Amino acid sequence: MNLIVTGTVSIDTVQTPSGEEREGILGGSCTYFAAAASQYGPVRLVAAVGDDFPDEHRDTLAKFPNIDAAGLETRAGSKTFRWGGKYMDNMDERETLFTELGVLDEAPPEIPESFADSECVFLANSHPMVQMDLLSKLPKARFVVADTMDLWISIARDELKQLLGKVTGLVLNYEEAEMYAGVRNPVTAGLKMLEDGPEFVVIKKGEHGAILVHREGLAALPAYPTETVVDPTGAGDTFAGGMMAHIAKTGDTSIHGIRRAMAHGTIIASFTIESFSLDRLAGLKSDEIADRYATFSNMLALG
Amino acid sequence: MNLIVTGTVSIDTVQTPSGEEREGILGGSCTYFAAAASQYGPVRLVAAVGDDFPDEHRDTLAKFPNIDAAGLETRAGSKTFRWGGKYMDNMDERETLFTELGVLDEAPPEIPESFADSECVFLANSHPMVQMDLLSKLPKARFVVADTMDLWISIARDELKQLLGKVTGLVLNYEEAEMYAGVRNPVTAGLKMLEDGPEFVVIKKGEHGAILVHREGLAALPAYPTETVVDPTGAGDTFAGGMMAHIAKTGDTSIHGIRRAMAHGTIIASFTIESFSLDRLAGLKSDEIADRYATFSNMLALG
Repeated sequence: MNLIVTGTVSIDTVQTPSGEEREGILGGSCTYFAAAASQYGPVRLVAAVGDDFPDEHRDTLAKFPNIDAAGLETRAGSKTFRWGGKYMDNMDERETLFTELGVLDEAPPEIPESFADSECVFLANSHPMVQMDLLSKLPKARFVVADTMDLWISIARDELKQLLGKVTGLVLNYEEAEMYAGVRNPVTAGLKMLEDGPEFVVIKKGEHGAILVHREGLAALPAYPTETVVDPTGAGDTFAGGMMAHIAKTGDTSIHGIRRAMAHGTIIASFTIESFSLDRLAGLKSDEIADRYATFSNMLALG
Repeated sequence: MNLIVTGTVSIDTVQTPSGEEREGILGGSCTYFAAAASQYGPVRLVAAVGDDFPDEHRDTLAKFPNIDAAGLETRAGSKTFRWGGKYMDNMDERETLFTELGVLDEAPPEIPESFADSECVFLANSHPMVQMDLLSKLPKARFVVADTMDLWISIARDELKQLLGKVTGLVLNYEEAEMYAGVRNPVTAGLKMLEDGPEFVVIKKGEHGAILVHREGLAALPAYPTETVVDPTGAGDTFAGGMMAHIAKTGDTSIHGIRRAMAHGTIIASFTIESFSLDRLAGLKSDEIADRYATFSNMLALG
């Protein structure tokens, strides 16, 4: 299946508990997703940036030959979305230091004609109305997964519920699933969300892995255990990128296919957090992914 | 290997978020551990109770034919350890409402002569000096695992470190591992603990599963995903009971043996939390364990 991702390309400032700080680095949900997905095959990127978007970041994206950036729209007179965040001691909690919406406060990006036949769609976190608008322009979409966040559950709950009726799956954080469903058990929360339409919900738990609540059953995976956590930014988006790209590549949309795809997402995310921005993913070799996937698979083999 | 457990047999009062409360129910680390271990084979129990220990609780223990309670010492004029706890909304946090130490404030229980040849030893949570004292009376011990808690890390750190030099493995909670090691990553924390002597550390994360940090590698397992959580009391002790009993039964003390044993612990714990006290374990059938283990194993099979 042709894979497409819509979302943000941003300029980030990140502070980690070790006191390290990086200013003006390449970030954004689309960026991380596409860099991860590109390890498995082609991925189409749809996002808008302002004319302040540095050439250096364009060059970084160009290092990923599988990313088709024909959908990266540069708007004259507009500003690129900027985000600043600071991680707490445990690396699983973070504080947003600032957000400058820029292009996010304008019309959604255009989807190029050449992307119109996309079948496998990831709608990265955005207002559910924007997600539905983008989806409506992809008539061939047949495996659609959306991400969301607490903000939309609070201020756009009805629209989010409407979106759930249009997607195959939803990806969201643990606390967000419980917030949407109003219950304190992730399985119960996921099952409640299925009532609103999707075939499955993937509940992300950061360092504690992820849970799959699917119409045909449940699954759970730990995170890949590691000492190396430099910057967790993008872990969730690269998890989704590895997962969706594996599904797009294999075409296996069964619960088992999604489960294995989640394991690939887990592995890609474990590389992402080893350095800032796309630094680790840029040089990543398919052997490294295969080796770590094999280690993970052996670690979980109980038969 | 002959399996023995030392620890507490208690009378508990438990409040759950649903508003349910049970007063005076059978609890204690030894009780839960032994009830879980008994699903796999014989287990020897060493603990002290007062003469207030009800016959009804003795009858419950007697329902587990694999539990050898020759080491359950009843002290005239003493009081059984009593604990009261209240679970918060998420079932993973709890507040201790009261503790009445009773026999725990007296000399450790005696180990019967008939238990002296025990090889596989679980020292459930207790002051590390008590754990070392009990271990010193088991000359055939060759696979020894201890549990501990934040209290001993705070007030008996040196003794706990000494204990680490005498055990094969340690089982403790996530926050406790980080507290002992003074670092915020469970893998780093576990590796630091290995420097004090044990071959492995099992870090329990409640609803998020467990991590194995072993001299020969790492592993991680999720918890069994379930909607049915009535009372989490005893989950950690039954996890340890399933794990140790599986090792005692198979004799496989390799990292892979421990990993599979942890999966059995995970499954037994998932039954424990389905009801109060030993209610679910009392009627548990080996088929039920095998079925759930197979489901768990399939859920994690990535090959």
